[in-house]
Amino acid sequence: MQVREYDDGDWTQVWTIIHDVVREAATFPFDPDMTEQQARAVWIEAPPGLTAVAAEDGQVLGTAKMGPNRSGPGAHVSTASFMVAAGARGRGVGDALCRFALDWARGHGYAGMQFNAVAESNTTAVRLYQRHGFEILGTVPRSFAHPTRGRVGLHLMYLEF
Amino acid sequence: MQVREYDDGDWTQVWTIIHDVVREAATFPFDPDMTEQQARAVWIEAPPGLTAVAAEDGQVLGTAKMGPNRSGPGAHVSTASFMVAAGARGRGVGDALCRFALDWARGHGYAGMQFNAVAESNTTAVRLYQRHGFEILGTVPRSFAHPTRGRVGLHLMYLEF
Repeated sequence: MQVREYDDGDWTQVWTIIHDVVREAATFPFDPDMTEQQARAVWIEAPPGLTAVAAEDGQVLGTAKMGPNRSGPGAHVSTASFMVAAGARGRGVGDALCRFALDWARGHGYAGMQFNAVAESNTTAVRLYQRHGFEILGTVPRSFAHPTRGRVGLHLMYLEF
Repeated sequence: MQVREYDDGDWTQVWTIIHDVVREAATFPFDPDMTEQQARAVWIEAPPGLTAVAAEDGQVLGTAKMGPNRSGPGAHVSTASFMVAAGARGRGVGDALCRFALDWARGHGYAGMQFNAVAESNTTAVRLYQRHGFEILGTVPRSFAHPTRGRVGLHLMYLEF
């Protein structure tokens, strides 16, 4: 598996991943009925941000986007988001994408990385981020309507470099 | 002073307020060089959101925007932002705008209101929100580059209805 910069030829596979993740509505506070055009606008980052994919033998297993979390006086802190294809979970794809994003952010001189909304029910992601050094700074209770568990909290997670 | 829905005739005065606030770069993580067109895109909300102004004798003293904080499974929590004209501070404009936004959000059935990035140096705003019942759920240290105080924290504040 290789993590590399996204290119336009990856779009069909990336859109399949995004579509599955947003329809499931269990991890991202995105519109489940998001169109392909909206997904492209949300996920494909222009500089100074970057979109990446984890690929193996031409197959896209997961995707990440990264960039400044805020503008102006907040632009020195980065953020990133990760999605893994349903059939590729449990193989370290998220871990590889997270490592890539952290290397990218450190290499570009960011002061830290912030995740604004990690569903507390997504324990795989929470633990993965904690293994990379992220801390939960706060949790907004009942702010994410999970399709089967009801309203769960969204964690604000942060790693200062 | 009356707080009411924004209309297009307010734009020139609203833009003056936004321009002053972003150039000062002491409270909002917005690009200080934001253009008028960018400001309009950021500040003027389409439904389900709303933009409002506090006005007196045809003069706009402050402005607020409000709407869902996130999409899909996060759309039941609201957010809002407030800006007060430099010449109108200390007159309760922010308080009136905050009350308006809270009434609006409660009236539209939101479960709470979240402020994602309140500069901890902006003690006037922090105290105002606390008076309205908001709590600081977490603070991202050194994530806001204040023009004179250096890097200060950004509070995540929340009020559950």
